[in-house]
Amino acid sequence: MDSRPIGVFDSGLGGLTCVKKLMEVMPGEDIIYLGDTGRVPYGGRSRETIIKYAREDIGFLRSFDIKAVAAACGTVSTNGLEEIAGDYPIPVFGVADAAARAAAELTRTGRVGLIGTRASIRSTAYDEKILRCRPGTKIFKRACPLFVPLVEEGRVGEDDPVLRMVAEQYLEELKLADIDVLILGCTHYPLIAGTVASIMGPGVKLIDPGAQTALALRRYLAEHDALSGRERGRQSYFVTDSAEDFGHAASLFLNSHVEGDVRRVSLEERYNGK
Amino acid sequence: MDSRPIGVFDSGLGGLTCVKKLMEVMPGEDIIYLGDTGRVPYGGRSRETIIKYAREDIGFLRSFDIKAVAAACGTVSTNGLEEIAGDYPIPVFGVADAAARAAAELTRTGRVGLIGTRASIRSTAYDEKILRCRPGTKIFKRACPLFVPLVEEGRVGEDDPVLRMVAEQYLEELKLADIDVLILGCTHYPLIAGTVASIMGPGVKLIDPGAQTALALRRYLAEHDALSGRERGRQSYFVTDSAEDFGHAASLFLNSHVEGDVRRVSLEERYNGK
Repeated sequence: MDSRPIGVFDSGLGGLTCVKKLMEVMPGEDIIYLGDTGRVPYGGRSRETIIKYAREDIGFLRSFDIKAVAAACGTVSTNGLEEIAGDYPIPVFGVADAAARAAAELTRTGRVGLIGTRASIRSTAYDEKILRCRPGTKIFKRACPLFVPLVEEGRVGEDDPVLRMVAEQYLEELKLADIDVLILGCTHYPLIAGTVASIMGPGVKLIDPGAQTALALRRYLAEHDALSGRERGRQSYFVTDSAEDFGHAASLFLNSHVEGDVRRVSLEERYNGK
Repeated sequence: MDSRPIGVFDSGLGGLTCVKKLMEVMPGEDIIYLGDTGRVPYGGRSRETIIKYAREDIGFLRSFDIKAVAAACGTVSTNGLEEIAGDYPIPVFGVADAAARAAAELTRTGRVGLIGTRASIRSTAYDEKILRCRPGTKIFKRACPLFVPLVEEGRVGEDDPVLRMVAEQYLEELKLADIDVLILGCTHYPLIAGTVASIMGPGVKLIDPGAQTALALRRYLAEHDALSGRERGRQSYFVTDSAEDFGHAASLFLNSHVEGDVRRVSLEERYNGK
């Protein structure tokens, strides 16, 4: 048993979709969440900048003596996370690894789709991860830069005509590519899974990387006898810009009221270490 | 005559619409542009953070011995610019001031509309500036958070159905408010002026704050005998994240090829001074 908390970070608040799943599958775990809202979004930034930010995020979480990290940020987990994960004495789980493994296991036809931010799609990290699990898989990708602002505007309903029009345009080529699995490669996307599913049709399974990461973490902790053993854990939330709007966003992503503290922090150079 | 350059900054590259107008109305001036692309967008950040960033931006530009600053960022110019402008020995022009003055002069009915980012609309800075120029003006405001990502995706055509649908929703109340002037309170918006104009109709004059700022700067420099006296100035561009994508964005905002250098810089604490 290991009662230390699990650390979760994202560039913003989308990573809360991973926290939601963690609370569902391991209600006894303490969770420390960091949303780097002062520097969101990471999606358009250079690889070098993304790695620097990820080191600071992990460094901050490590100041709480955590037992594992979930990088609940699609951009980080496809832009250098593998390079830095080995630098830490605790396991670092990236959403892309968990999703790639699930996609490789679920596809029957070997034709997998991926949607995400520009940086996630530009990177070949997902391709490499999927091909490592299932050589020969054909991967079809599409950047969907408007999905995040649409979700953040609360346009998540299946009947929202703007969301539907944008989604139909983004997904057109993927439909023609005849995939049977589609990875929702950004933590915001599970909120519009309904619209995506209705466009892609029942033959395409959707993969939520945050949820897959929560499941992978549970597997790891169970295998290493490192679950907390408690009935009910606590959550603490940290953001790097105003904590005021957190409640609204959290209710969007967690689909419930926030329990636990929300505090604002500064990520300083001192978190840069390993 | 004053041959020193003019400094222009924005959180990103939208401020290039102001540079474009500056080059048009004062082709003889040297221009130093800073796009804080490593920390864009400012729109969702707290006032405190916005002021800190603005100080660093102006501090960087001042390292080039400039004769004036244009804050070509709607968010900065409505969140604390007035507070810090007096700290510098050179004039600091904000897009909001220039636009507010133009709106107050142009309105016949005293009913003025304003669209912008969430932070610009949340702030009462525009209201105060307009009311100072023309007491009793009625101001109608609407945040349009999807316009920036739509422009950045190149969806600027008047025939783009997504842009039109979003714009019609955003502008609905402003149409009913019977305004005769509408301020495009974000540097990205001039690129979709065609769509906005066609929805608002011919009775509503649109105000481009970047262009108004360029005109105000020319007026100031002419009055102070501080124009360069050259035939043709040079432009230098600085960004705080990858310089690679600059060419594409610049062609969007400048509507021409970039001439002059593009370099990446770090904004450090040392630029925090006055």
